[in-house]
Parts: sequence; C-alpha cells; structure tokens
Amino acid sequence: MKRIVVAALAALASLSAAADEGMWTFDNPPREAIASKYGVRLDAAWLDRVQRATVRLESGCTGSFVSADGLVLTNHHCAEECIAQNSTPESDLIGNGFYAGTRDRELRCQEEAVSVLVGTEDVTAKVAAATAGLSPEAAGTARRAELARLEQACEEASKKARGGPFKCERVSLYQGGQYWIYQYKRYEDVRLVFAPERDIAAFGGDPDNFQFPRWCLDFSVLRAYENGKPAKTPERLRFDWDGAEPGDAVFVSGHPGNTDRLLTVAQLETQRTAFMPFWLLRFSELRGRLLQYSKSGEEPRRTTESYLNLVENSIKVRRKQFDALLDPALFAAKSEQESALRAAVAADPALAGSASAWDDIARAQAVWRDMLVPYTFIEGGAGFNSTLFSYARSIVRAAEERTKDNAVRLPEYTDGRLPAILQSLQAASPIYPDFETIRLSFALERMREWLGPDDPIVRQVFGNESPDALASKLVRESALADPAARVALYEGGQTAVDASQDPMIRLAVAVDPAARALHKRYQEQVEGPVNRGQEAISKARFAVYGNRIYPDATFTLRLSYGAVAGWKEKGEDVRPWTELSRAYERATGEPPFRIPPRWLEAKDRLDLATRANFTTNNDIVGGNSGSPMLGADGRIVGLAFDGNIHSISGSYWFDERMNRSIGVHPAFIRAALEQVYGAKALLAEIDAR
Amino acid sequence: MKRIVVAALAALASLSAAADEGMWTFDNPPREAIASKYGVRLDAAWLDRVQRATVRLESGCTGSFVSADGLVLTNHHCAEECIAQNSTPESDLIGNGFYAGTRDRELRCQEEAVSVLVGTEDVTAKVAAATAGLSPEAAGTARRAELARLEQACEEASKKARGGPFKCERVSLYQGGQYWIYQYKRYEDVRLVFAPERDIAAFGGDPDNFQFPRWCLDFSVLRAYENGKPAKTPERLRFDWDGAEPGDAVFVSGHPGNTDRLLTVAQLETQRTAFMPFWLLRFSELRGRLLQYSKSGEEPRRTTESYLNLVENSIKVRRKQFDALLDPALFAAKSEQESALRAAVAADPALAGSASAWDDIARAQAVWRDMLVPYTFIEGGAGFNSTLFSYARSIVRAAEERTKDNAVRLPEYTDGRLPAILQSLQAASPIYPDFETIRLSFALERMREWLGPDDPIVRQVFGNESPDALASKLVRESALADPAARVALYEGGQTAVDASQDPMIRLAVAVDPAARALHKRYQEQVEGPVNRGQEAISKARFAVYGNRIYPDATFTLRLSYGAVAGWKEKGEDVRPWTELSRAYERATGEPPFRIPPRWLEAKDRLDLATRANFTTNNDIVGGNSGSPMLGADGRIVGLAFDGNIHSISGSYWFDERMNRSIGVHPAFIRAALEQVYGAKALLAEIDAR
Repeated sequence: MKRIVVAALAALASLSAAADEGMWTFDNPPREAIASKYGVRLDAAWLDRVQRATVRLESGCTGSFVSADGLVLTNHHCAEECIAQNSTPESDLIGNGFYAGTRDRELRCQEEAVSVLVGTEDVTAKVAAATAGLSPEAAGTARRAELARLEQACEEASKKARGGPFKCERVSLYQGGQYWIYQYKRYEDVRLVFAPERDIAAFGGDPDNFQFPRWCLDFSVLRAYENGKPAKTPERLRFDWDGAEPGDAVFVSGHPGNTDRLLTVAQLETQRTAFMPFWLLRFSELRGRLLQYSKSGEEPRRTTESYLNLVENSIKVRRKQFDALLDPALFAAKSEQESALRAAVAADPALAGSASAWDDIARAQAVWRDMLVPYTFIEGGAGFNSTLFSYARSIVRAAEERTKDNAVRLPEYTDGRLPAILQSLQAASPIYPDFETIRLSFALERMREWLGPDDPIVRQVFGNESPDALASKLVRESALADPAARVALYEGGQTAVDASQDPMIRLAVAVDPAARALHKRYQEQVEGPVNRGQEAISKARFAVYGNRIYPDATFTLRLSYGAVAGWKEKGEDVRPWTELSRAYERATGEPPFRIPPRWLEAKDRLDLATRANFTTNNDIVGGNSGSPMLGADGRIVGLAFDGNIHSISGSYWFDERMNRSIGVHPAFIRAALEQVYGAKALLAEIDAR
Repeated sequence: MKRIVVAALAALASLSAAADEGMWTFDNPPREAIASKYGVRLDAAWLDRVQRATVRLESGCTGSFVSADGLVLTNHHCAEECIAQNSTPESDLIGNGFYAGTRDRELRCQEEAVSVLVGTEDVTAKVAAATAGLSPEAAGTARRAELARLEQACEEASKKARGGPFKCERVSLYQGGQYWIYQYKRYEDVRLVFAPERDIAAFGGDPDNFQFPRWCLDFSVLRAYENGKPAKTPERLRFDWDGAEPGDAVFVSGHPGNTDRLLTVAQLETQRTAFMPFWLLRFSELRGRLLQYSKSGEEPRRTTESYLNLVENSIKVRRKQFDALLDPALFAAKSEQESALRAAVAADPALAGSASAWDDIARAQAVWRDMLVPYTFIEGGAGFNSTLFSYARSIVRAAEERTKDNAVRLPEYTDGRLPAILQSLQAASPIYPDFETIRLSFALERMREWLGPDDPIVRQVFGNESPDALASKLVRESALADPAARVALYEGGQTAVDASQDPMIRLAVAVDPAARALHKRYQEQVEGPVNRGQEAISKARFAVYGNRIYPDATFTLRLSYGAVAGWKEKGEDVRPWTELSRAYERATGEPPFRIPPRWLEAKDRLDLATRANFTTNNDIVGGNSGSPMLGADGRIVGLAFDGNIHSISGSYWFDERMNRSIGVHPAFIRAALEQVYGAKALLAEIDAR
C-alpha cells in the first residue's frame, strides 16, 4: 500500500491531473488534461448534448435517453424495485424477466421519477450575503432559509416560463465552498419496458458483486412519459455497438452519489470509530435475519429479494470502506494533506479566517460521535425500520411542516419536495406484512440494545411489550398499507393526524418531539459548526489550489474521463474484458451461478466470443450505476454497473493503479435483444435515425 | 479517555501496584501491595487452601467446592449447556429450573469435566536448553516436542504416585517468558444438582449483559463424582452469608481466560484491522440467522438458546474490545509503553538479543494478516461450523496423529489430550439437524463469499451445490449424530476412516491437506517467529521490571485483589449493590424481563431489601465466571458472574476508575434456596461443619 500513499501525496503536492481522477462538474471539466492525454477536445456542444441526454433516477441511479420517444437505458439493479413491485406470486418478473413488446403493456414504476438537469445558477454570493456576520448556528438557519427561498423562486420562475413539472434543488459543492441552485425537468411517470432475468442480469450474485472478471447483463429499459404519452426526447444518445478497445478514451456522465475525499481527519475518525462499526454490526445482523427468513419459502424469497440485494450491496461497500479507513496509510496520507493545507493557511494572512476551521470541526465531531447512536435510531429512523413507519413519519411531519413558512421548514418538507412525498404516499406499492414485521422487530430490538432498556424513549415505545409483539401489532393494526388511507391522512393535515388512531401514526407522533430535539441539537452543534468550518477550509483550498480540484460527489451531474484498461492483481494482469463463453463454463445450475433457460436454449445461435463486461479506469461511485459510458464521439460504448473491489476505497481517495469501473459491453446488450429475447420493436426504436 | 492514558503511562513508569490491577499467579501475588492497601497478609496456608478449593470447568469457567462431598458452586450460564443437554421438548430445564433433591436424581453433564490444580513445575530452563541455537521454525518444533515430553513424563509420574485421572498441561506465561507444567486432578463425572429458571438467572438477558445495576441469580450447583460416588473434597470453601461491605477487601480466585495486555503494537494492529472486523461481521450475521430461526417456534427457540447466548455474549465482548482498539488513546499508550521498553533495551548491551524482536513480530503479523481469512475458514473450521464437522475432524485427525510419536503430534492430539476427545465423542449430546444445517449453511456461504467462488477449496467443497443444499445433505446423510458411530470410527483408526462413506468424514478428509498446509505455514511463519520474539521481549521485561509484573490471562489459576466499590458513570455515582425489590419493579412480564412464577409466588415471604448483585474493582475477565469472591478470612462473599461494560477493555488495559466485576450476593443465593426453592437438603450440605 506504500505506493498509494506516495501517489496521493504527489497528487496533493502538484494537484496535477496526471491520474484520470475526479468527478467533475460540467462547468469545470479538466479540458486541457483530457486533450493532452487522449487528444479529445470536449466542446460546449458535446457537453450540452450529453447533459441533456443523461437522466437521474430519483431512486438513486443514472440513466440515459436512447430513443426519441423517452426510452431510458439503465441497469437491471436500478430498476429492480420497480420490477419487484410489479411482480406477484404468479408472475415473478425478477425471476423470469419482462418485455412489454408494445407500449400499452409497459408497467408503471410507482415510486420512480427521472430528472434531467436543464439549468444551474451559482448562488454562493447570495448565501454568503445572507449569512454574513452570524454565529454558526444562526448562519445555519439563515442559510437554510435563503436556499429554500432561492429554490422556491426558481420553481415559480420555471413554472411560469415553461410549464410542466420542474424541480429546483439546492446543491452544496466543495463542502460549502460553492452553493448552486440546480433546475431539473422531472418525469414522474416512468414505466418498465424491458428487463432480463435476474439470473443473467446479476450472474454471480452477491459473491461476484464488485468482482471482475464478470458476466452480468445488468441492463434494463424504462420509458419516461409525459401527460400519459411517451416523452419526446430528441437529445437521445446512440450506441456504438462495437464498443471501445483498450486505451480508447471513455467518458462517464452520471450522478455519483457520495464521496468523502475532502473530509477532515477528525471527520474520518468519526467514520472509522463511530459510524462504520455501528452500521456494519447492525446491517450484518439484518442480513442474517432476512436471509434466514427468505430461505423459509418461495414467497418470503420473492418479497425479500430486492431489499436484501440492497442490504448486501451496502454491506460490501461499507466493509471495503471500513477496510480503507482501518488502513494506517490512508490516515497518514490524509494527515499529511491536511497539514500541508493548514501550513499554507498559516503562512498567508489573507486566510487567517480559516485557521481555526479544523479544530472547530473536530469539536463538532466529538458532539456528533456522542449523539450518533440515539440520533440514528430515533431521528434517523433506524429504530423503526419499516415502510409503514416511513409513511407515518412523512404524514406526521408534513402535517406540521406545512403549517410553517416554506423557508423555516425541515428541508425535506419544502414546497419543492412535497410532490415527491405525495407520489410516494399514493404509490400502490405492495406491503408484505411478515417482511415489515421482521425489519421492525429487528429495529426495535437493536434500539433497545444500543440505547439500553432504561432509556426514556425505549420505555415510552415499548411499555411492557417485547419487540416481536410490538412490531407485529403495529404492522397488523396499521391501515397505512392502503394508499387511500395514506393520502387521506396527508390531505387531512394536522387535524387528521390528531384524530387518527392508527398505531403507526401514534408511534410517529409519540417519538417526534425526541426526534426533533435530536435534529435541532444536530443542526446547532454539529451541522452548523461543520458547515462553517468546511466553508472556511474550502475558501482556503480554492485560494491555494485554484480550480484544479473537483468537488466530492453529491448525486448531481458529473463527468469522469479515462480509458478502457485492466490492472494488475497480485502481480497478474487482469484483461479488461470478458467473453460470453466463460459464463456458460462457469455456470453451476444453482443460483447465483445459474444461466436462465432462454440463454441455454439460445447458446448455439450466439457468438460466444461476444464481449460481456469490460473495465475502464474512470473514477465513478455508487449513483453512477446506469451511467452511459461514451466514446470521444459521444456514442455509447458501455453501460456502467459496478466497480472492482478496489474502487470502493474511492470514497476516500482514488487509487489510479487499482480502481476500475465495470461496464456492460454494448455487444452483449445487442446479442441479448436480437438473439435471445427477439425484442425487435425495441431494437428498431433504439436504432431509428 | 485522557486520564486513562495518563494512568497507564504512570503505571508503566513505576509499575507500582497502586491500582488493584493484575491476575497474579499463586506463586507471585503482590503480597506487600495487598498488605499495605488492605491490611491483609496472605500466607501460604491461605493460598494453598483457596487453590485446592478452586476448580476449573473445562467448558470454560471457574467454580469452587462448597461441600465436603464435591458440590461445586458456579454460574448458571456456566452450566447452561449441561442444563440444555438434559432438556427435552417435554422438560425444559433452562426455562423451568432444576433441583435434584436427592443424589440419585442428579443429572450427568455429558461434556463437562472439572479440574483442580495440584502441582506446578517451572520448566523454562528445560525448554531453553531444548531450543538453544535453533532457528525460529526449528525452535518451534523443538519446543513443542519438549513440552509434549514433559507433559507425558508428568502424567506417567502422577499416575504411578497417586492413581486416578490426572492431567498435565503446558502453560506459557509472560508470552513465552516462562514455561510451566501444571498438574491437575481431573473429575470427568460431573452432575447437575441445582439450577434456577433462566428468567431469574439471566434476568435482563442480552440487553442487560455487562450492565449494572443488575438482578441476576446467576448461580447453579454441580457435583463432582469419582468412581461413581460423590467426590471427597474436604478443602471446600464456606459462605459468609452476609457478604461484604463497600471498602472490604475481596479476592477472586479463578481461571481468567485470555487477555492481550502484553501484545506488541503490531499485534494489536492485527486485532484492530484484520481479526475484529472479520469476526464481528460474521457473528453479527450468524446472530441474525439464529435469532430469526429461533423465533420460528418453541422447539427452534429451545434448541438454539444456549448457543445463541454464547454468540450474543461473544459479540458484546468483541464489540467493546473493538471499541477499545479503535480508541486512539489506547494505541498512543501502547506505543509509548513499547517505546519505553525498546529504549531500555537499546541502552543495555546485555539485552541486545531482544532489540529486533518487535520488528520480527511485525513481519510475522504481516504474514498472519494475509492468511487470516483462509486460515480461519479452513484450518479454524469457520467454513464448516457444525458439531458434526467438529466430530468428523477430531476423528480424522486423531486417526492420523495417533500413528505418530507423541512428541511430534498436533498439540491437541497428544496422549494427554485424547481422553477429552474421546469423552466428547462418547457424550450422548443431542444433535438438532435444523440447527446444525443453519450453522453449516451459513459457514459455507460466508466461506464462499470471503474466499471467492473461484478459490480451489471452495470449488472442491461445493462442486455445483448451493450452500443450503450442501449443508442439508451433509447433516442429513451423516451418521455422526450417533455416539456409537463416532466411537467406532475413533477406535477403528485410520482404516475405519479410510473405509467410511460418511459424507462429513469424507469432507473432513478432503479439506485436511489444505488445512494442515495452512497450519504448517502458520506455525513456521507466524507462531515460530512470534514466540521467539515474545520470549526475547519477555526477557527484556523481566530484566527491566523484575517480578512486579503479572502475565496475561491463559485460563490458568490466578488471584485478583480489590474491594467492594462502585464507580462514577457520566458524573453519577453508581451504588455498588442492588436490592431484590427493584427486580420486581423492573419486570415487564415479557422475556428477558420476566420474573418466574415461583418468585412471584414467593414475593411476600421475601425480604425485598436483600442484596441481589454487587460490584468490586477486582481485575477479572471471561473464564473467571463462577469464581468465588472471598473475604480476607477466605469465606465466600460473592460469586463472580460478569463485569461492567468498561471491564471489556480489560483485554488490553486495566482502567481502575471504571473497570468493575459483578457478583451474585450470598444473601440472594441463600434467600433463593431457603425461601423460593425449599432446597433444604442442599442447604444442609453446604452448611454442614
């Protein structure tokens, strides 16, 4: 691991773009580095076209328009919840796959929406003006109010100018170094068009997740609708079915979710000593409970699958992040970086205002570590983990927040956010009582364990009940599984909430004062001082390094550049692509190494040398799933769906030697649609000029 | 946590016995410190009497003789496996408790044995002579052979001199600074005499484990038999039914299992970055699986309970140990201690031979971290977690090892160890196939996850099977649940093993070459260099600090001194005892806060001011469970059963301010036997002069 440290320190010293590192905003891509390394000059038209064809799946992924009638290409695992929600005991679309064939058979994804970034405004100066001279706590309140005002103004302006559903969102880049308002065109009617069988989409399952070589057909096709009709999306991307060769430049456009590369050492300490062990212990046990339940029958298996995949994927990510945090080399490198910047600040009188920032953040971290456990269970909702409780909390909080001025509401309940809440409450998503009860019982039991049986909230919630009995009663007696009941409560506001005898509503009401108190303490003693400190550090960073830096990922649009490339694993070269033949050889007939019948039947027709998956050295992260991987000409040469195991430490640093992205090769998609599924209409729409 | 570091450093500087710290061997108790602090002078007669009345429960606890006819006082949780093994669906002794009443109704604990330390010999010089001038690997082999020879000689001598079952064991103290042969009188026939209901023995269950205030009647009574009759044990201890008051001196005699206070920083790094996360992730998931299974019915609950308690207890310990390892203060203190000793070594030419020891150990740790995962799964057996596999491995290895000379066998299969193996194979302990299958399936699944589906051993073990199918088949088709089948294979030796078609035997045979290769690599590249390095450090430590140090715990007899004392928790005084009344107030009627019917019925007869549990500042650790807590006059003033939550970091350092032991008060035991259970014959035997 020695070379990584050296590389990281070298990168710090020069901050040159020698490595293909960074998730860059579209207003500041490293054009010169790209041109000099790959001979590709990205002009404004290229960037604008790619931006308008890249969509954000609000459930946490990326996609891209691949037809003029709103077809969206994304991963199978990104559509998995939609596919599961459209499944029944008689028709298991996860297991059997789905192809609509005609538009009238496309299936609504009840809780999905896709958004396209159509405008951005830098409001850093406005926020600075609104918070000038205030204490950290007061600045926090003022900042939230100003950003809420700016969002609202943006939404009203766009409604007037363009009609249709637009959504404006505050974005904080460079840890508060910049504030932006991003304006999205939002499609709230999204439907499932095509999905392969889980066994080929996620061939190798959890054991192969984050591994390479791989053979996953991890793609699906959705369609955005507008006013009940397929959306018009002329800015669609085209495929380069041949894909890219080793060394070819590859660009990834998408919405990386979260990185922590700019955290201070004190913040990383919180991750290492408090957050990660606490999270991993709980989720490992939850994994065990869900697995054991899912093995108890076909229906338990089906109803648990999608959530369990999410849990297992998250565990794998957190585990490797934790490994990175436990690596003494990481902390050594981060400490050196921090010392270097602090030395630069100390040497420049103009940056005197930033000098105390690191210690201020460290003090706030001590508070945060102290309150992390109760905050997570009570305000974070980990003590009530269930979909029904989430509905109840949304209803209870929305009722109270809507009586307040938009600018002083909890950020999740501003006018701009309410439509998404209503969409979720209206969605006819199936609720599985046994599955709900298991999650809730687990959550209650662990809350009691970590907070202790004598904690006042624990006593209030439990009375004399056991976790199992309480969870079972709450789930059985709540009417919130019914969308109509939810919507009635939401629309009835505070009066309806007050009158409701629904036990889940009553629970959400009962714990809300304690939860809000924790929220307030967090805002005042953690978030406020941390934001203020980060702004100061960010100012220093810009002053010292200029614009040769990129912000941490924030689930907003970014561009990554790189090339098709393998890497060396324990001294052995890893070839940057796989071929279909090996998937057949590797199959055991048992999940997760089972080839679906359609693929067994099609084997003889297929060219087994077809490339299946491939790797590049693009710097991406979760949220980039479903991102189009583009050649220099802007055509799709792959579909990002994973990273190798080394990519997970990308949360904290980019290791150019080892960090690789994994994509589905276009030839694999073509072969599937053409030779296996006979999806002629779909292919024709994608191929249409 | 700052004050702890200061305390630890101060302790290092002077190594004075100011704190009531240490698990001292009976040949080197800190007599002066005890005399000056508590005015108690421990003479040879006192020590000898306590040693002969203290027993080791071979399943991992301590006990003491409390009657002249072999009655053994220990914890309920120490007898839990015995109680569970004597339970049936119709007669749940864990749930309902047990009182034999007469000797003919006492129930055999199939897998228990108790041992009394009757002699010790310091063989450090003999081992040094046998290993002089050899390389670390060769020294390892020579040391094992010499210790095996010494054990065997001791056993032959004691058989000639005294008859009856004696057992001699090698003991390494001070990390190889001293080698001893300990001679035990061993009682292999142990029976259950009395156990209260789980609900009062473990009142508060897992949520209250390691917590205080507590109200646990965590005691049980066993009896040692010899030649089918109650053993004669005139060196029994007597009770002081009034117990001890705050400030009164308390001595704990017992067998603390393991501490890691003398590890080097490199070894602690292994614990922090490799061992702990790996262990905790796996066991948290296993906990989830077992909990979910145990909730599926009364029989699953009953058959899982004892093992699950063990898992949950271990998780709590590891979790807090991990917290300690993640505390930067711990590593700072340990680094300072190490630097101080290294500086002393560098300054003394006579200690030049010890100078490279720390780096040698660090190099071995790098190897160990690299092989920890495969070693744990394949050689450690974590990939095959099931009682049936344990039987299979014992049978397969014993067959091969018994063909070798005693001195070159694996240490677990020397002649001295074989009787315990045979006892375990003969024991008619119930095997629950569903429970076995769940553990085994989990183990296989995680082995595949961590080693990867393409690992050669994984491929060999799995073929084309899924973990569930494979586990189910192995458990269903193996005959090893039958003691007669196990004993026949054991006695048939290599020929029987070769001929066996039992799938569990075949699995154990199949993985044995890989497992033994890992064992060999471990011995040569980890254990050998580490032992050699530790011996060198130990030499230096004795040279610098003399005998004012105590060895790490090794599940051998130790004495701890201290007093009844509370502590300050977040600024609040914790009173060092609890009273029975509060248990009734705290009861919810639901497990684990349920008072058993007998206790509800007896409530009016009981003095509710009776002390239930109490705390002392004795330095003890797991393995001390069941230890007698003694007053200055050698009478029993308590029964150790737990530590407070701060005691868990005692694995690495002793925090005098916070680390407390928890005991059952004698008055609670007396009230139970007299007022609740009417156990007159038992009380009469204990009270007999």
